[in-house]
Amino acid sequence: MSQEKHSPEHSTKGAYVHSGDEFARDTNYIEDRIVADPEAILAAPAPGPSKVGTVGAGLTPGATAWPVEAGRYRLVAARACPWANRTLIVRRLLGLEDALSVALPGPTHDARSWTFDLDPGGVDPVLGTERVQQNYFKRFPDYPRGITVPAIVDVPSGAVVTNDYPQITLDLSTQWRQFHREGAPDLLPAELLDDMWPVMTRIFTEVNNGVYRCGFAGSQEAYNAAYERLWVAMDWLEERLSTRRYLMGESITEADVRLFTTLARFDPVYHGHFKTNRNKLEEMPALWGYARDLFQTPGFGDTIDFEQIKRHYYVVHEDINPTQIVPLGPDLSGWLEPHQRERLGGNPFGKGTAPGPVRAAERVAAGHNPLYPA
Amino acid sequence: MSQEKHSPEHSTKGAYVHSGDEFARDTNYIEDRIVADPEAILAAPAPGPSKVGTVGAGLTPGATAWPVEAGRYRLVAARACPWANRTLIVRRLLGLEDALSVALPGPTHDARSWTFDLDPGGVDPVLGTERVQQNYFKRFPDYPRGITVPAIVDVPSGAVVTNDYPQITLDLSTQWRQFHREGAPDLLPAELLDDMWPVMTRIFTEVNNGVYRCGFAGSQEAYNAAYERLWVAMDWLEERLSTRRYLMGESITEADVRLFTTLARFDPVYHGHFKTNRNKLEEMPALWGYARDLFQTPGFGDTIDFEQIKRHYYVVHEDINPTQIVPLGPDLSGWLEPHQRERLGGNPFGKGTAPGPVRAAERVAAGHNPLYPA
Repeated sequence: MSQEKHSPEHSTKGAYVHSGDEFARDTNYIEDRIVADPEAILAAPAPGPSKVGTVGAGLTPGATAWPVEAGRYRLVAARACPWANRTLIVRRLLGLEDALSVALPGPTHDARSWTFDLDPGGVDPVLGTERVQQNYFKRFPDYPRGITVPAIVDVPSGAVVTNDYPQITLDLSTQWRQFHREGAPDLLPAELLDDMWPVMTRIFTEVNNGVYRCGFAGSQEAYNAAYERLWVAMDWLEERLSTRRYLMGESITEADVRLFTTLARFDPVYHGHFKTNRNKLEEMPALWGYARDLFQTPGFGDTIDFEQIKRHYYVVHEDINPTQIVPLGPDLSGWLEPHQRERLGGNPFGKGTAPGPVRAAERVAAGHNPLYPA
Repeated sequence: MSQEKHSPEHSTKGAYVHSGDEFARDTNYIEDRIVADPEAILAAPAPGPSKVGTVGAGLTPGATAWPVEAGRYRLVAARACPWANRTLIVRRLLGLEDALSVALPGPTHDARSWTFDLDPGGVDPVLGTERVQQNYFKRFPDYPRGITVPAIVDVPSGAVVTNDYPQITLDLSTQWRQFHREGAPDLLPAELLDDMWPVMTRIFTEVNNGVYRCGFAGSQEAYNAAYERLWVAMDWLEERLSTRRYLMGESITEADVRLFTTLARFDPVYHGHFKTNRNKLEEMPALWGYARDLFQTPGFGDTIDFEQIKRHYYVVHEDINPTQIVPLGPDLSGWLEPHQRERLGGNPFGKGTAPGPVRAAERVAAGHNPLYPA
């Protein structure tokens, strides 16, 4: 199946459902990296094949190493997009707000690009562009692939440096250390890494991507297979999380960030829109307790804009929701209910501490999240 | 809003969603009746305007009275259709199987008609027709309105006698008495009738039809209003049923039949397909207990074919589900869980008794209902 035939959901290229086909995600990204020591990265061995990024390896052949620098880059991350949502959570957990500013495209986009339609005048105040596509074209004037978020832009040139989403959050943890806040948690504990890769890989292929495989299935047979495959993974997670407070044990890690952004969208979008409807997340006791626990942990729930999330999927995927009507449900008040996950022990931030309050300019709109009532 | 512009969902006429419009149900039916005493009915006063049928009044002007007769008529009732489902429940509760035979069209239909595609050779063995439309045309060769089920056909002529669904079940109760089984419950107790009409009217306009108003809304505004209106009614029912075992108190009535057929479709279809997704039925404790109680009562759950129900809505409404993919969820095992509604007292059949087992020829297919495991 050719890469050109499909576009990732967070991009803006073409239709989502292809008759008869199983959905396949375009994995062809701009694999440059922003790193603490470009020379050292250039000298390190190239990474092996990975769908979830690497820690410790060097550059993909042909990619460039850019130097970490406070204030030089701008993260473009639509709140609606689960892949971009990861970066918003990690940036906040690590306290990178001052070092790496953020641009927030609106929830809907046309075939060309995510746009800055929520900003005054429809222009990002720092990048000066109306659509993310312009920043891709500043890098490659004939950029042929999907215009995706998250993307990190070099502010002086306006050019996209990287949109390699599985690598971005890993580099925020490992390469941007000098700008981490005091008390920043270690999301990639060295002693857990060997165990984390298979967990993150399974979460990526079976859950993060698994929900899209259901929603963009081009035939009943492809959907049926995708649904069964998703629920095998959901049952695995339900069991895993019935005895562990977090995916890797006592404290939050990158793996939890990656699972959480899918869980937050499960009942509001995937259950109905993508037909992942064996059960609601709310019907899975361990997973629902886990999701609420994270939601109520500073850095997670406070990045979630349920209105933008619903609007994105139901409006953009016109081929599966031709009326573009956005459901008013589900009732989201349960996200704030006590989760009682403390009985499993553990401590979310390990040896670190919780991040402080969200900056006023970056707060999710009132009424878009039960943390911020209308 | 003209009647011609819209077609009822259980008919097969045209598109379901009209841009900008609120969905309005065609209420123009063949209002003939099959009655115990045609002379008496002709002498009785014409019924007043009603969306839910009448008891005790005579014919609508222009309509004809046909005599009740065992073996003369055939009820055409697709299991998928909630309006037809009412007749299957009432026929069974009253034990009319010998007096009134049943034809069961398949779950999907084309623009012309419901068809007998489940029968050997695609022909109803008694009527000898392939599609219900043929029986409408035998009555009116240029029948201009939607081909709907339920319909009752005069077997000798093959012509549809009535498709006036709110009246059909009332007449089964009141006009077909001589053929009721011993122990048939009184679904229209005289002392409750005055209280039942407003309850049945509210259930019709706000719930039975309210879910369609959500699903076929032609604009976000129309949907939003429909959703709010539906949930006002659902909350009213939740409260009403928290202190009453059945809608009218101690025993089942026609009102319960009418609510049940919508509730059985709520989580499998309306929640996702029609975006009635504030909560699942399973999240409404009294309503869910009530629905399970009825489901487990002979005559109710044993008429439900969840596979046909899902297939009908998701395949036929191509304008809201263009992929026509039918969800594998939800998990339906909860329908058989204990409901504990006995603590509210009451007795489902009043002074009557439960109907006997379903006849083998009329049993829902294995795997299509948790009562009949695959």
